[in-house]
Amino acid sequence: MTTKVTNEHLEQQLAWRYATKCFDPAKKISARDWASLEASLLLAPSSFGLQPWRFITISDPALRAKLRAHSWNQSQVVDASHYVVFAARTTFDLSLVDEALQHTAEVREVALSTLEGGRSTISNFITALNDRNAIEPWCTHQLYLALGMLLTSAALLQIDACPLEGIDPNFYNEILDLPRRGFSAKVACALGYRSDRDLGATLKKVRRSAQDIIERR
Amino acid sequence: MTTKVTNEHLEQQLAWRYATKCFDPAKKISARDWASLEASLLLAPSSFGLQPWRFITISDPALRAKLRAHSWNQSQVVDASHYVVFAARTTFDLSLVDEALQHTAEVREVALSTLEGGRSTISNFITALNDRNAIEPWCTHQLYLALGMLLTSAALLQIDACPLEGIDPNFYNEILDLPRRGFSAKVACALGYRSDRDLGATLKKVRRSAQDIIERR
Repeated sequence: MTTKVTNEHLEQQLAWRYATKCFDPAKKISARDWASLEASLLLAPSSFGLQPWRFITISDPALRAKLRAHSWNQSQVVDASHYVVFAARTTFDLSLVDEALQHTAEVREVALSTLEGGRSTISNFITALNDRNAIEPWCTHQLYLALGMLLTSAALLQIDACPLEGIDPNFYNEILDLPRRGFSAKVACALGYRSDRDLGATLKKVRRSAQDIIERR
Repeated sequence: MTTKVTNEHLEQQLAWRYATKCFDPAKKISARDWASLEASLLLAPSSFGLQPWRFITISDPALRAKLRAHSWNQSQVVDASHYVVFAARTTFDLSLVDEALQHTAEVREVALSTLEGGRSTISNFITALNDRNAIEPWCTHQLYLALGMLLTSAALLQIDACPLEGIDPNFYNEILDLPRRGFSAKVACALGYRSDRDLGATLKKVRRSAQDIIERR
């Protein structure tokens, strides 16, 4: 049974959200809440359902400290309850399409042959992306969509978050051994609870007006 | 006053969401719901708060029909209650940084001079992006994050949606007069209510397992 949240509730949580710069290191996200946040990543949509990504959750404090040094020294990397690195596939070959279709056939209990039309469409699409070296951007776009779903889900659970684009992908890739596996770190997200000392929470939100950024045709 | 939704409620709505291929053209999103969905776009976070995007909502049926012909002929373009084109900035010059800081100073009622440190950081960042021709991808990533927030917000309001990457950007750009204004169409989203005839709603969701895509370190 599904039910909608109220408009006011959704809007309040969206307005409550802000990029938290200073987390309270003592406050941890509960296992139950973390399961919901992981669900938002697992259920995030992707092109043809191919999920061309890995989400790496970093708990080890020593590893967090190393990553911080390559993240503009931002304290969120070490102080937040949870820290997730978003990695996109850098290559995509047709064997991954076969694997995904095999999985679909198993989950939906249909013969693989019934998915033959889809396989041809997807394979042509992937081949065209490979031909113009566009696999990595295509995967990265989808990865940011998943980040948007995670941020919104966190806001609804009243969990603070901060997306971090200022990470050094070369260092992240090396230390997380991503390139060998066909992935590259693109963006990260710190999640937890704001510190009482975070001035950002008290600042008035600044946004362009609807008439500036929404055009009606 | 803000309150969290329950974990079960969030998870249910996330699981309820799917890429709706067949919309009921008779069912329209209410003005109140649409206001909430616009709020998710207006409040979407962006790098340094620069909001390098335009969201173009297309109501005109004739325009929708034209766009459909350049969107793999997908029926969502014409049948969905609402159709939004996501456009990213293709260029970003320092006058836009000045404009954003001026706006911040006004909203927060502080002297522009207090934002001087921020201006320097942001300007250096934008200059570096320009130097390596990376403005457009940077804006596009953020645009997909906003799309993720819109999709999640729609799911919480029990509104169906379908992101559309299969759009011809050249045609969209021309017909929406985007390049002259420094924008390019990147992705679109149809929103409304699923048709009773949409088989997609009945299919079992296919996702890789958590152990496949979430790595713990």
